[in-house]
Formats: sequence, C-alpha cells, structure tokens
Amino acid sequence: MDRFRIELPSWGFADTGTRFGKFHQAAAASTIEEKFRDAAEVNRVTGVCPSLALHVLWDFREGAASAPEVASLTKSTGVKAGSINPNLFQDQIYKFGSFGNPDPQVRAAALQHTLDSIDIAVSTESRDISLWFADGSNYPGTQNMRHRKAWFDEGLRLTHAALKPEQRMLVEYKPFEPAFYHTDIADWGMALELARAAGPQAKVLVDTGHHYSAQNIEQIVAWLLDLKMLGGFHFNDRRYADDDLTLGSIDPYQIFRIFHEIAMYEWETGEQTDIAYMVDQSHNLKPKIEAMIQTVTTAQELFAKAAIVDHERLSVAQSRNEIVDAENCLKDAFATDVRPVLEEWRKSRGIPARPLTAFRESGYQQRIETERAGKGRSAGSSYA
Amino acid sequence: MDRFRIELPSWGFADTGTRFGKFHQAAAASTIEEKFRDAAEVNRVTGVCPSLALHVLWDFREGAASAPEVASLTKSTGVKAGSINPNLFQDQIYKFGSFGNPDPQVRAAALQHTLDSIDIAVSTESRDISLWFADGSNYPGTQNMRHRKAWFDEGLRLTHAALKPEQRMLVEYKPFEPAFYHTDIADWGMALELARAAGPQAKVLVDTGHHYSAQNIEQIVAWLLDLKMLGGFHFNDRRYADDDLTLGSIDPYQIFRIFHEIAMYEWETGEQTDIAYMVDQSHNLKPKIEAMIQTVTTAQELFAKAAIVDHERLSVAQSRNEIVDAENCLKDAFATDVRPVLEEWRKSRGIPARPLTAFRESGYQQRIETERAGKGRSAGSSYA
Amino acid sequence: MDRFRIELPSWGFADTGTRFGKFHQAAAASTIEEKFRDAAEVNRVTGVCPSLALHVLWDFREGAASAPEVASLTKSTGVKAGSINPNLFQDQIYKFGSFGNPDPQVRAAALQHTLDSIDIAVSTESRDISLWFADGSNYPGTQNMRHRKAWFDEGLRLTHAALKPEQRMLVEYKPFEPAFYHTDIADWGMALELARAAGPQAKVLVDTGHHYSAQNIEQIVAWLLDLKMLGGFHFNDRRYADDDLTLGSIDPYQIFRIFHEIAMYEWETGEQTDIAYMVDQSHNLKPKIEAMIQTVTTAQELFAKAAIVDHERLSVAQSRNEIVDAENCLKDAFATDVRPVLEEWRKSRGIPARPLTAFRESGYQQRIETERAGKGRSAGSSYA
Amino acid sequence: MDRFRIELPSWGFADTGTRFGKFHQAAAASTIEEKFRDAAEVNRVTGVCPSLALHVLWDFREGAASAPEVASLTKSTGVKAGSINPNLFQDQIYKFGSFGNPDPQVRAAALQHTLDSIDIAVSTESRDISLWFADGSNYPGTQNMRHRKAWFDEGLRLTHAALKPEQRMLVEYKPFEPAFYHTDIADWGMALELARAAGPQAKVLVDTGHHYSAQNIEQIVAWLLDLKMLGGFHFNDRRYADDDLTLGSIDPYQIFRIFHEIAMYEWETGEQTDIAYMVDQSHNLKPKIEAMIQTVTTAQELFAKAAIVDHERLSVAQSRNEIVDAENCLKDAFATDVRPVLEEWRKSRGIPARPLTAFRESGYQQRIETERAGKGRSAGSSYA
Repeated sequence: MDRFRIELPSWGFADTGTRFGKFHQAAAASTIEEKFRDAAEVNRVTGVCPSLALHVLWDFREGAASAPEVASLTKSTGVKAGSINPNLFQDQIYKFGSFGNPDPQVRAAALQHTLDSIDIAVSTESRDISLWFADGSNYPGTQNMRHRKAWFDEGLRLTHAALKPEQRMLVEYKPFEPAFYHTDIADWGMALELARAAGPQAKVLVDTGHHYSAQNIEQIVAWLLDLKMLGGFHFNDRRYADDDLTLGSIDPYQIFRIFHEIAMYEWETGEQTDIAYMVDQSHNLKPKIEAMIQTVTTAQELFAKAAIVDHERLSVAQSRNEIVDAENCLKDAFATDVRPVLEEWRKSRGIPARPLTAFRESGYQQRIETERAGKGRSAGSSYA
Repeated sequence: MDRFRIELPSWGFADTGTRFGKFHQAAAASTIEEKFRDAAEVNRVTGVCPSLALHVLWDFREGAASAPEVASLTKSTGVKAGSINPNLFQDQIYKFGSFGNPDPQVRAAALQHTLDSIDIAVSTESRDISLWFADGSNYPGTQNMRHRKAWFDEGLRLTHAALKPEQRMLVEYKPFEPAFYHTDIADWGMALELARAAGPQAKVLVDTGHHYSAQNIEQIVAWLLDLKMLGGFHFNDRRYADDDLTLGSIDPYQIFRIFHEIAMYEWETGEQTDIAYMVDQSHNLKPKIEAMIQTVTTAQELFAKAAIVDHERLSVAQSRNEIVDAENCLKDAFATDVRPVLEEWRKSRGIPARPLTAFRESGYQQRIETERAGKGRSAGSSYA
Repeated sequence: MDRFRIELPSWGFADTGTRFGKFHQAAAASTIEEKFRDAAEVNRVTGVCPSLALHVLWDFREGAASAPEVASLTKSTGVKAGSINPNLFQDQIYKFGSFGNPDPQVRAAALQHTLDSIDIAVSTESRDISLWFADGSNYPGTQNMRHRKAWFDEGLRLTHAALKPEQRMLVEYKPFEPAFYHTDIADWGMALELARAAGPQAKVLVDTGHHYSAQNIEQIVAWLLDLKMLGGFHFNDRRYADDDLTLGSIDPYQIFRIFHEIAMYEWETGEQTDIAYMVDQSHNLKPKIEAMIQTVTTAQELFAKAAIVDHERLSVAQSRNEIVDAENCLKDAFATDVRPVLEEWRKSRGIPARPLTAFRESGYQQRIETERAGKGRSAGSSYA
Repeated sequence: MDRFRIELPSWGFADTGTRFGKFHQAAAASTIEEKFRDAAEVNRVTGVCPSLALHVLWDFREGAASAPEVASLTKSTGVKAGSINPNLFQDQIYKFGSFGNPDPQVRAAALQHTLDSIDIAVSTESRDISLWFADGSNYPGTQNMRHRKAWFDEGLRLTHAALKPEQRMLVEYKPFEPAFYHTDIADWGMALELARAAGPQAKVLVDTGHHYSAQNIEQIVAWLLDLKMLGGFHFNDRRYADDDLTLGSIDPYQIFRIFHEIAMYEWETGEQTDIAYMVDQSHNLKPKIEAMIQTVTTAQELFAKAAIVDHERLSVAQSRNEIVDAENCLKDAFATDVRPVLEEWRKSRGIPARPLTAFRESGYQQRIETERAGKGRSAGSSYA
C-alpha cells in the first residue's frame, strides 16, 4: 500500500453536469485556490493523494504566468501540481476538430496550445501531459478519416519533439462523445499507433469509462503492459457510456481485475511499473469532496484485494488449465474484507482510520459552504 | 404522401451542445419568434411541417401568459403550436428527480408545472402534452425504485385527470442520461404500465434514440400498435447513446422498417393510425435549418419507400414462410429511388421540388445571420 | 440462510457447447439417473439444492411414462423433481417457430407438447412449468410480428387453462439467440403482457443473462415485485450475450443488487416472497459438478451479503437524498466477508463447511469418470 | 463492376445452426463435390464468384491428399479453390486454446495443422491462408493473457516463415464467442500487432460481424488501408453478436460506407487495392443457394452505390467543413437505384439479368433436393 498513490483532478471539485444542465453545490470549487485546498483536505484524510491534475484552460487563466500561483498553492497546501491537461475542445474554433481539423490554422492553434501546455508543465514540474482529443465527426462522409489520421500523426510528433527528456505525453482514446459518428482516436489500437509514431516518451492513457460495452479492459491493460506502452489511468466507473461515476460504484470486480493484471505483471517480471493513477470523474450529484474520498478508499480496497491474490498458486493453476482453482484465486482475494487491514495501515501512518468520518467530523465542508456561498455563480446554462 | 406531416421542435433551431460545450451558430434562434419564423421557412420549402413543438420553460417565459404571443405568431407564420413539452429537469429542485423525488414538495412543484403546461396546451389548442422525465439515480441503492414508481403512478394519474377530453398525454421512455444508474421510465414496458394506469388518454411516445444497442424498435412499434398505445415518435438517429443526430443519417433501413410496420398495420386492419410524428434532434454541428430540411425530406423518402412495399405479396410470403421472398418485398421497396416521385408530388402541390436548394436560393439564411448577429449571447458554458 | 434454496438444472450436468462444438467431459451425465445422482452430490455438500429442474425432451424420453422412474430416483437420491421445461425449439418442425409459427399444425403440436409437459409436472408433483420460446426470425419482414403476438396470446391462454390450481407457468424473455432479427418474447415488458393475459397463475421468469448490455436488471426485478409478477430466476452470468457462465463470475455486484432488491422488498412490506431460484448455466469448460458447487456457494455469499444491508439506515438515507450514505449501506454489506459466517451456518446444519473441498475429498468425481468412461458418446457434431 | 469479385465459403452451402440445433435442408451440401457444384451454380447466375473458400477439416478429409480431387472439381465446375481455412477449434485438444494453449504439445499440434494447411494451399494454388482463432477463456484469471500473447506471437511468426513468397496469411479478430471472458485476438489492434510482428505477408482480415456494438467498422477499414494492412473481408451482417446473417440484411448503409472508404482511398491515391472479398455466413433458415445469390447481388448493389459517390465534390466539401453537402454526397449515391444499371451490365457480360430468377427457373434446386434427399444425415445434435 505504501506505493499506491492516486492523483485527483481539479475539475472533480468544480460543478459539472450533463448537457441538460448542472446542479450547483454550495461548496463547489471555482478557483484554483479552492481546488488545491479541497484536494489538500482529501489528501489530509487519505494520505495518498499528493498531486492534483490541472486543466490548462480552467486552472491557468493566464497560461504559464499562472505557474507562480500554483507554486505558492503547493507550498501552502502540500499538494503538488500533477498532470497537465490541455483543452482542445471548448473553444469555438474546435467545432470540427483540433489536431484533426481540415483547417491548417486551427491545427496550428491547437498545436500552439499544446506546446504552451508543455511549457506550463515545465514550470509546474509536472511530468505528464495528458492529451484527450474530442476530435471526430457526427455524420458519415463529413470528414476524411485518413487525412485526419495523418494530421494527428504530425501534430503528435511535433508535440513529442517539444517534450523535455523527463516528460511524457499520454494519449487517451474514447469511442464516442462529444463526436457521435467517428472519433479520431477511438480505441486503444489507434492510441497505440499514434503514440508509438510520436516517439518513445509517448504512452497510452486508459480511461476506464472509454470502452465499448463488454470490452475487456484488463486485457488491453495486459497488452499495453506487455508492450511497455501503458502510461496511466483515468479512473471512474460507468454503466452505459462515459458516465464518469465514482470508481467501483458499478462494477468493482472490473477494477479489481485491472489492478490484478498489474500486480501479476510485477510479480512475474520483477519489474516495478510506472503508471500514473489518476481520477477523472464528474460528481454531478454527490458532494464533491465526499465523492473523492469515497473514490480513493475504494481504489485502495480494490488495489489491496488485488495485492493478496496468491500469484504462485494462480500461476500453477493457469499453466495446468485448472480453471476452477485459478478463478478461485481471484474470487478468494476479492471476497476478503481488506478494510480492517487498511485501517491498521492508516493508523500506522498517522492517517485517520476512516477518512470519510474524519472529513465529516472536521467541519471543513460547513466552512467552505459558508465561505463560498456568497460567490457569484454563472447561471445554470440552458440546454437549448 | 398527402397524409404525412411531421412536427418540428422549437429547440432544434436553438444552439445546443454536449456537456463539453456548445458551438454557436450566427443564425441560431433564441426567441420564440425566431423559432416560429425558422419553422415557417422549413414549412415553406417542404410543405409538410405545419406545427411546432414548444417547450414550456424555454418558449413560454411567462407561462400561459405567453399564449397570445404564440397565437399571434401562428397568424403571422402559418405555423401552429404543436405538442407542449413541460421541463422537469432543469430547475435546481430536480436534482434528485421530479415526479419521482422523495421530497413531496418537489413532487408537488413538478405536478404543478405539468398542470400549468396543460393549461398552456389548452390556450394554444395543442392536443398533446409530451412528457419526458429525466428522473433516476446515479448510484446503486441511492433511491428506492419502487417508491418512485408509486410516486410516478400518482403524479401521472393526477396529470391525466386534468386533461381536457380532446387532449392526450404522451409518456416517453429512455434508458439513461442524464441518470446513469437507473432511470425511472427506462423502457417501453415501464412507459406502457404507467400510461395505462394513468388513463385512456395516455399513450406511449417512442423516441428512436432511446433504446438499448440492438434493441428491435420496430417490434416495439408493432406491439404498441397492436395494443392501441402508440401515441407518437420523437425522430432522430443515433449510433451510440441518445446522440440526437438527424433522422436516417446512421441507419436509414431502421427508420424504413418502422414506417413499414405502421403501413402494414394500416393495410391489414383498414384503420388509419393517429400517430404524432415529431422531430427531436440536436443540431450541434449542422446548420440548423438545413439540418431540419434534410430531416424532413429524408423522413418523406423513407415513408414513401415503406408505402410501396407490396403488402399483398408480403403477406402471402410471410404466411408460407417463404422468407427470401418476404424479405425481398422490403429490400425491393428500400432499393427503389423515390426521389423523382417525391419531386413530382411536391410540384403538384406547389412546393419546391428540391427543398434544400430552394432554401439556399432564398437568401433566408444570410438574412437571419445578419439580423441575429448582433444579439448578445450568453458565453459558452464551461464544462467544469 | 435457512430459507434460501436453489434449484439445479439437469442439463447443467450434461455436455453442452457452442455452435462451434462441444468439449466432452468424461464424467458428464447423459442419463436422467446420472443427473439425479450428480445433483444429489451437490445437494449433499451444499445442503440447499433439494430439487432438480427437468427438461421434457432430454429427461423424459417416454413422456409422462418416465415419471415413475423420476419418482424412484427421488426416493433413492433425496432430490425432488423441480420445474418442468418443455422443449419447443429442437424439433425440425420448429424452424420458423412454435407458438408463433404461421403454420397452425406446428402451433397445435407445440401446444400439445406443452400440455403434455403439464401432465408430466402433475405426475412429478412439480409446481412450475418453465416456458422459454426460441421463436423469432432472422430477417426483417420475414414474419408478421403482430400475428405472432396474437398466436402466443392464444397458446399461452390455453396453456394456462390446463394448469392445476397449485401450478404456475413461468414466461421467460430473451432479446436474441437463436433468433437474430426479432424474438417474439424479447423483453420483460412482452413477457409481462403475455403472462398477465394468460391468467393469474402465469408469472415472469428472469434469466439474468437475457438482457441488453447495460440494462438495469434489478430495476426490472423491483418492478416485477411491485406488480406481484416475479415468478423466478434462471441464474447465470454473462459478459457479452447469453454466455451462461457461472453466477457472479463476471459481475458479482450485479447479482448482489438483485438479492438486495428482494430483501429490501421483504423488509419493507413484511411479505415473504415466493420466488423460484434456479440455475441455468452451460458448463462448457469447467468440470460440471464443481461448477455447480461454486455457483451455489457464490449465490449463498451474495444472498448473505444482501441480507446484512442495514435496511433501516438505508431507508432513512434514501428518503433524505443522502446518497453517499445510502450507497455506502450497499457497499459496506458487499465488502463484508461472509464466508466465515456461512461456514458456521453450514456446520450447525451438518453440512460440510467447505463444499468444494468436501466434494473433492469424496472421490465422487473419480468414481463417475471411471463408471461413465466406457459409455458410447455421439461424436462431436461438426459446425458445418 | 468488372473488377468486383466475391469468394463464397464452402460451409455456406452446408447445414449450420446455433448451439440449440440445426434445421436440416434437403439440398444442403455435405461433400466437397456438392459444395463446388453449388458454388458453380451461384457463379453461373452471378458471374462474379470464381472461387470457393475451403475449410481444411471439413473439405480436405485426407489433407493435402485431397488436393487432386479439388483440382478435378475446379476443372469440371470452373470454380477455383480460394482461401484455405485451417480449423483450430473443433478438435477436443483445443478445449483451452490452440496457438495460445498453455500446453506446448497442443500448440505444436496447432502449428502443424497450420503448416499442413499452407501445404494444401500450395497444392490448390491458393494465395490466402485465412486464420481465425477461437482461443480465449471463459472466466477471469483462468488464463495468463500475456503468456498467450507471446505464444501467438511465436506461432504466427513460424507460420509466416513457412509461407511461399506469393502467399499471404490473414489474421482475423473477434471480440467473443466461443470464448466469453477474453478472446486472444479480440480486436483489430491485436490482430494488427500480431500480423505486423509475423512478417510482411501477414495482413488483417475484417469480418464485418466481429465488432462491438456501435463500433465504427469503416474507420477501422480506413486505418488499415492507410497502414497497408487490410488483407480482406469476411462479409455478413449482424444485429446483436456474430449473427452471420446475409450481407446488408440488417444495416445496408454500413456496408455501403465500407465500400465507400475503399473507393475513396483508390480515387485519392490512384492505387488499386488488393483486398480479398469473401462471404462468411450461416444460412440457418434461408435456402442456402438463394441466400448466397441474394448476398452476391446485394454486395454488387452496395459496391455500385459506393462507386458513384462524387469524390471530387465530396473532397471539396470535406476540406471546407461543409458537412451537409459532404454527407449528401453519400446519401445521394446510396439513394440511387443501381439495379437497372447492374442488369444492363450483366446482360452485356452474358450473365442473367436477374440471378435469383434465373436460378429459380433453372430447376437446379429441385434436382439437388432429389439427388441429396436419400443421403444419410447425422441426427440433429441435442444441445445438452
């Protein structure tokens, strides 16, 4: 457990919603300072969230010039800047894409924003640039998918060329939304092709909510591990589409199996993997800080269950095709209640045994609700 | 073709988007007057869109008091008010549901809004109240699904009780979004149960985008026809979720099969169905008026193809299990190019043979882009 | 736990496979005697499987005349005959359907087989007739779905009319396979309509593998409970289609939530439900008896977890929309390791604490492998 | 049209079914001679099916020794041997896999069978070895997915090493069935990785039924074209899983879009693609020869529609983001009735204008029903 760290996303503390609107929470963070403070509170009660993923557009209103503010927040909260996320979907110029837009001026603007994001990452001492592209199209025939592939290829190579030696770029895939006919980087195979073409510091980012129904995510993880191309995760859970629900809320056994593949790989190869575990969720209904704490403790529980799989026994059963025994290695570990052990571990590290309880008793939520209540908030947008 | 009419949605002329933002169009309608004018233009070039579905919250800013304005617009544009759509999802009180909310005060407010909508429908001489509920939950256990069913039952009965004899209420179903764990009216079976319990003027509304992947929509249509419970359609197309793409853009054969089931039912029973054909789409990328014209002409083409199925021959082949011949009845009709016949039909009715071309030549788009360009527009909302 | 009983299917002990072939197991049961003996062994080590679902075609080679043999097997094994399953899909006459076949002679034959099955059920003192229909079509237009609905309606009414007062008929639904375009009873709504029309002794049967991807099964269970129409379950797990994997092997939280809805219903209403819990799985790769034992103990574990949900606390949290607390009621129960309690319960009933271990130590598997090894087996069928 | 050829599968003329059984057809082919004769009849009436895909296990009962028989049949029927399909799933040794089996003896046997298949291909002068692997697992944890990847890697390299210079090996992918938890080559990305590692004569085979729901097949085709890795197609249609329905029977627009991507690629690059178009369907209900003729003519129609897309106009519209115009290029082509042109083309080549009619008038079906009626047929297998 000492090695397991999980990065929180700054946008997980802010108001989010669906296309039908947002439900506002009194305590939702709207400034980067509030996001850092909320993240620090989660880190205080869980002890495993030392960094905060930042979003260039929402958190660096003045670009790299905002970096000193971030440094100062790190000093005051003890939370470091984590991965840097460019925004290549919100500006009106991106209506028909960013790196894949037929218009070379838009592509240039998108590349510049990405290069600026790398500069920001340098200034915040962030290793990872996390690239999600909303690019795609809504109707058959409206875009040339091969041309767009070539433009992505070029843009990602240029991005890679700007990386500092210690930096990485993570290429995320997603089957749909906001594009509804085709998405340029739709699956792990496309992300892999593009990342490999970009250069050795490019890896694939697996968002657990970005798969087709029934797709075997842990198999993709196993392949990416084998290919040395797994850069990190965006954790969340889903039932239908990219629902961005809290991790393990819908299918906890799925997340356990992902952790298992990683643990098994490490046990078998003796390697220590270098994977960025990041949360990416929309807390539309749940109180945001509580949702985050719940997510972190759930992740720890599933990680711990995966750690106690009997790898030796499993390995033998697999090699002999003793499939009931092999499966029971996973079932037994998953059935084990690891919460008591986690509480002990926390106590031994000076972390509250029950993070959610500790948070609730702290009065933090009440304080920020009062503090932030008076703040002007943009009216909830109307769908149409 | 003379009987086929299709109702446009007022929100189809306004700016819409995804949770990641809206791309603004210079000519997007933002007032009810603009929506009526745009609808009238579509009706001018297609001749089959005499009514406009209205949205209580967005179009009747002053409730029933806005009715005279609508009457006046009908007079000036020749377009009537169509179905009336209450809004039970946007207000902050609906965070945990409307008719299904555990809080009786919220349920009462939702009912009152619905009763007000019936009054509005009376004032606009609209027959149909179209009820879509976003109600549901995002996480297992967080809501009591049976209690919510009972509350829906009660609310819909009270709604039905307020209907005028000539009015109908249409109950829509949807598997998910914005709720991601459970949706209270998730499928046709639930809508049917609730509609039947509410009373004889309640019917089921089929939105073609509100189904599980691979679900057989035309079978549901056939069952609802058989049960005399099909009230109408919200037409659109989809590939993944409720994508709200233009009709027939992804799977035209699917829409053809729906029209076929209706035509076959009428041929066989001698009954003339009374089904409200309504468009419900989000034109996030396509120019809104062009998207609407394209939708209407596509609907006509698919309706016409369904009309030329050889029902006699099909009926015989079905009864004899001659399945290749039976299937070819549908394939032959679908393969037929009905566009020339439609052009002839339009000319004979004084409608432009090619509606999209006629629209483009009219200069309407340029005029409204100029007119509406100066209008203040709320800044695009940020996702987080 | 004392109330939880689960019925095994006779076909779960026989060789099954996919369309691509069967992998034969030396110990697979091929006679009804072998199936009863294997079921008795599972019942011996688990103590909760007193009945065996029987398949008319495969287990009653001589129809009702086979009943005395069954009675004798019950006497010798202590396992009763459970639900009776007619077979309306295997005979060549059913190529285009059984109850829904356009040919009245086929419909009559299908009805007769069903009435014979009721007689068999009388003779075996079985309460439930379990009706699964493979009826459907593979291509659009090839069958009249409304006619078929009417024929089903008629056939099911006549079936109901033949039931003894203490009997029930269970109507199963399934979206697809073996029919690939439309299935006559495709979802719970269709099964509900037909069951209700048939009469009061008809209930709906939920097979956990017979749903669309992402469909909320526990919501359907909650509705059927509320409507007093839930007759029973066919338990199995799946990832893609109707995979018939062992229960809880893919998504254990899903099965837990189903049990939770039932437990919550009973707690809230004070009613004791009367639901037939039946296994329906294909053990293509796993040793059949071990697969069955694993299934039964998994079912017990998930049932036990559902039983320890704090209903009082959950109910309060739900009514107050305290969604994190409400969800945690389920998460806490699911995270609890109930295996020690189950072992204690077993010991107190004189059942082996660890059924799988007890089975393995019994030598039963070795004995039947030897006994059955010499038996002629039909050559594995070739797909094409 | 002169360039479009489509290869028929020998197993498409034989009785096939689902796991629930086969419905026998009097005229189903059961010998290789019958399959060649039936294929020749389809080729006679369509003129575009000069080759027949062969299945090593079912068609070469004596391995390479059967090759002279094939040569003789080619001489008598005018139909050549097409792609050679090893069978790596039916033998009992393949219970836990073939190339991916943990047992090295099974892997060796699988490799030997594949090398034998290459010899057969040499003897039949077939260019393509078509490799479909059913390998996978049914339960989490029961197999080591990375080990299996490595074994596949090795087996495919050795297979490639045995190819003659003019031969190709095609690697097919499939998400599930018969394996229900993981399939070793589950998607195009996995097939691509393995094919590329095997060597330059290895290409990817796209079976149109082997995708996740909603997956964009034409995008995969576009990528494979761009990567020069598209080897061929197995054509069929589906609604739910790998339903193996006749091409274009469920979603004809989907197949049209695939042909469009190929035509657009050729137009744009000036290259002539070298893609094996092959049918792979199960004619469980339709008369087999009629189903095949219907498939071929449907394929021609969709190919022809794709050929008349205005590429110049489309290309301009795409580059300008004029999305309605771009989409209409596809819609217009698809709406065009190409049947008259195809009839003309056939007449000009001395082919019957209406192949299905010509076949029906030929009396061929009646002849083979009589001839083959007396032949012994293995009893329909029982599912359990």
